[in-house]
Amino acid sequence: MTVHLPHDQDPQYPIAPWRRRIHDIIFEADTRAGRTFDLVLLVSILASVAVLLIESVQAVQVKHFRTFYLLEWTFTLLFTLEFVFRLFAVRKPWRYVRSFYGVVDLLAILPTYISLLLPGAQGLAVVRILRMLRVFRILKLSAYLAESSELWQAMIASRRKITIFLFTVSTIVVIVGALMHLVEGPASGFTDIPTSVYWAVVTLTTVGYGDVAPITPLGRFLAVLVMLLGYGVIAVPTGIVTSELTRTAREPVTNTACPDCGAEGHRPDALFCRKCAAKLDS
Amino acid sequence: MTVHLPHDQDPQYPIAPWRRRIHDIIFEADTRAGRTFDLVLLVSILASVAVLLIESVQAVQVKHFRTFYLLEWTFTLLFTLEFVFRLFAVRKPWRYVRSFYGVVDLLAILPTYISLLLPGAQGLAVVRILRMLRVFRILKLSAYLAESSELWQAMIASRRKITIFLFTVSTIVVIVGALMHLVEGPASGFTDIPTSVYWAVVTLTTVGYGDVAPITPLGRFLAVLVMLLGYGVIAVPTGIVTSELTRTAREPVTNTACPDCGAEGHRPDALFCRKCAAKLDS
Amino acid sequence: MTVHLPHDQDPQYPIAPWRRRIHDIIFEADTRAGRTFDLVLLVSILASVAVLLIESVQAVQVKHFRTFYLLEWTFTLLFTLEFVFRLFAVRKPWRYVRSFYGVVDLLAILPTYISLLLPGAQGLAVVRILRMLRVFRILKLSAYLAESSELWQAMIASRRKITIFLFTVSTIVVIVGALMHLVEGPASGFTDIPTSVYWAVVTLTTVGYGDVAPITPLGRFLAVLVMLLGYGVIAVPTGIVTSELTRTAREPVTNTACPDCGAEGHRPDALFCRKCAAKLDS
Amino acid sequence: MTVHLPHDQDPQYPIAPWRRRIHDIIFEADTRAGRTFDLVLLVSILASVAVLLIESVQAVQVKHFRTFYLLEWTFTLLFTLEFVFRLFAVRKPWRYVRSFYGVVDLLAILPTYISLLLPGAQGLAVVRILRMLRVFRILKLSAYLAESSELWQAMIASRRKITIFLFTVSTIVVIVGALMHLVEGPASGFTDIPTSVYWAVVTLTTVGYGDVAPITPLGRFLAVLVMLLGYGVIAVPTGIVTSELTRTAREPVTNTACPDCGAEGHRPDALFCRKCAAKLDS
Repeated sequence: MTVHLPHDQDPQYPIAPWRRRIHDIIFEADTRAGRTFDLVLLVSILASVAVLLIESVQAVQVKHFRTFYLLEWTFTLLFTLEFVFRLFAVRKPWRYVRSFYGVVDLLAILPTYISLLLPGAQGLAVVRILRMLRVFRILKLSAYLAESSELWQAMIASRRKITIFLFTVSTIVVIVGALMHLVEGPASGFTDIPTSVYWAVVTLTTVGYGDVAPITPLGRFLAVLVMLLGYGVIAVPTGIVTSELTRTAREPVTNTACPDCGAEGHRPDALFCRKCAAKLDS
Repeated sequence: MTVHLPHDQDPQYPIAPWRRRIHDIIFEADTRAGRTFDLVLLVSILASVAVLLIESVQAVQVKHFRTFYLLEWTFTLLFTLEFVFRLFAVRKPWRYVRSFYGVVDLLAILPTYISLLLPGAQGLAVVRILRMLRVFRILKLSAYLAESSELWQAMIASRRKITIFLFTVSTIVVIVGALMHLVEGPASGFTDIPTSVYWAVVTLTTVGYGDVAPITPLGRFLAVLVMLLGYGVIAVPTGIVTSELTRTAREPVTNTACPDCGAEGHRPDALFCRKCAAKLDS
Repeated sequence: MTVHLPHDQDPQYPIAPWRRRIHDIIFEADTRAGRTFDLVLLVSILASVAVLLIESVQAVQVKHFRTFYLLEWTFTLLFTLEFVFRLFAVRKPWRYVRSFYGVVDLLAILPTYISLLLPGAQGLAVVRILRMLRVFRILKLSAYLAESSELWQAMIASRRKITIFLFTVSTIVVIVGALMHLVEGPASGFTDIPTSVYWAVVTLTTVGYGDVAPITPLGRFLAVLVMLLGYGVIAVPTGIVTSELTRTAREPVTNTACPDCGAEGHRPDALFCRKCAAKLDS
Repeated sequence: MTVHLPHDQDPQYPIAPWRRRIHDIIFEADTRAGRTFDLVLLVSILASVAVLLIESVQAVQVKHFRTFYLLEWTFTLLFTLEFVFRLFAVRKPWRYVRSFYGVVDLLAILPTYISLLLPGAQGLAVVRILRMLRVFRILKLSAYLAESSELWQAMIASRRKITIFLFTVSTIVVIVGALMHLVEGPASGFTDIPTSVYWAVVTLTTVGYGDVAPITPLGRFLAVLVMLLGYGVIAVPTGIVTSELTRTAREPVTNTACPDCGAEGHRPDALFCRKCAAKLDS
């Protein structure tokens, strides 16, 4: 067969009906059970992330240690069960494990198990926060797919302009940083060029913490120039993304296909196919 | 009758002429009296909100307690009178009370009366600030309606893209927050993950208070990456809204077709077809 | 005569050739002398503003008092001379004095003369900074006129949307401010509702000084919501202005006028006038 | 000859084949050797800039002085070698030295040699950071050229609007600065007008360090107005750049006319006229 099918629908690998049913519930959102599963999963993910966040507060952890310990294991066992079902539901489990969401699913549960063997591995606990990424799998199944891909396409289409933009910004902040280090010196916090570059980024992106700020008149004058430059600079990525979004949204073509050659993308007032000159159906 | 009428114009419920007159003054802006009423109401609302704001300043309240007490009761009695007139003017008062603006109207006056029974209910006083929402009812009656609905439509049309965007931003700030908590630690204010997430939002939205700010080289390097990311991220909602506004704004032609030659795309004020000079149907 | 002429070209008021020549130099930018005058004036204005700025620095004023005193009087006499010449050059001097730029011209020189009579009037000195506005008169004469009016038109066209936007932002900051005053209290700087509203504006506009910042978990959570809201909110004015600028820039119509009725604004492919059906010249 | 050729391809100056080969590797990106050279150069530039940044940290320089001394000389000798090869490869070396990138190439190596003669010239060391600019020469050779020129064109096209915008912003910040100096005074950091103008720029650009911030009620009220103004003002450059980018991007049709019926506006891949089905000239 030349037609390419997703591996779990490939007729070369027959699959038992109950495994197909699990597959439909877990991986699709067409059935009622599938949508319920998605909703339960979404709530579980958000709740487990909330638990991770609150748990990290020293005062809370000391007081409610047992509660959070139990909650964490509940979520881990739940996600482990889900992971096992996913392995069952797909035709090629190994391929799934190596996929992006397979790795994320594993990273969501492994750290808790490892913490049994290596207690006190605080760094590993943070890895569990990657669970948050699992939210996007649910969005991908839903009506948000089209919108999401439109945003994504606008990003892809403008990646070269954004690369040039980032190179330009990097050059500006490095040169400005070196200059400010020379002008301001360590007295006002510009202790070295990396710190000054950090200040330049904080200023150009209009974040402006104020932890490093110029105090000499010349330094402040330069800072004013950098801020006015930042005005123009912040306009560029917005301009790029907006122009791409407007472009993809403009739809200057119809979705009529030529009855003879099947070419698509004709302009709305076209009478004849621009590829084979056949008369188009209005 | 098949024609749907607003309940207060429904001929099934005859209404006395003087009640109709009150209705026209209070709910419409077509007559001179109606416009005067709107202006007086607008000024009263803004003045009463200003009083609430100034009253909350400790020094002022101590010194001018009696003045503000009198002012507050003046506004409350004024708005109560208006509320009673509104109840009189509509055919179905109960339906009005349960409507959005009915609830807002009640919340604007109730707290002052309750404060007689329960003195010192500071929290309730804040509820009165919702009076501010009553301004929009006046705007709704005016020439701003069309513009307002255009803005609103652009928002509605882009709500899915904005949902995806908010999910993406949430994921970024949670993961970045967890990472920064690990890298920076409590010394520079990143005491727990919620605080670090708060910092990530402050940074990504380019607010940049500076109450929490990285001090280690690695932390600052990560912060620079977050800020540059914020550059791209801030471009997305702007791009979405702009693209929607441009889309809704781009209707310089009607969809009237020429009765003779069928040409389309005439400008709204066209009387004759620009292709064959035939008279257009309005 | 029905044709309206600018008052200084009105043949009813004959004007001496030397006054016309002064008029051309001062008010127009067509001749070489006119352009030279504009350049000299531009440099004088910027220099006099720079002097005002530097003069306000305590240390400098103490040390170089005489120099700045002399400089200020030089500029004042120069601008007075220019003002007198302007009065000579126009047909109706009194009308010029009451015009916007006439008032600005007077405000640029009067404070210095008044300071002779009322020494130590520091507040009046600040009025002289309005000289800066005189720069725009020079820009108006130049090639920047078209661009300037395009920007201005985009602003005018979107003034209603911006009014609604400002009302919405005001409502948000007042309600958010009242809520934060309740949640945070005076401990973290939210001493009263006006201060909390000030914080809300500082946050929503992404300025973020950090002089007032939430410290309680609930306050920070609310602040995060306000910042994410600010994301969407900052997109709106940008969207409005961009969409207007794109609209005015799009030029969907030609500037051909109908030979019969003089109607303008025909679409590029129009063959017949859309108002009177006359054949258009291509 | 009327055809204008780049000086190094001009047949009037015959060039030895080995010099042409060096030229192709260094100045072009068509051959495999040329692309390898570009990549090596890109990595060297970024590495040498990173070394300059890290070297400026006091603690690092004290500890690893010898390492950084060696690294700096390695990069300098490498870039000197490259410079010599460039001189060899072009027909008119002197013209190259005086070009923008020739000067940048010299500034990238000269400071290190001068530091041998004038030890301790810290200021000169900063000049070496201009090496960063050499990155853009590599980008210019690559596929990013078209995108880069599109961005550049949008900037050029909007330079007049941006000039007017900058004049307007300057006027606003000067007047606002003078006013705030009067209202706030030295107590809250508004010591003189230049400092107040610095504050106005920090606020209007939404940077918001917080090193200077209003504390009086009137000052805060004015600050709120400036921030809301900043909302509108930040929209303008974004609007300008976006509108220009959308304009340059909006060419989905060619300007080929149909040889039979003269219809225009065909899509770039059209082979036949969409109006009369005649074959189009490519």
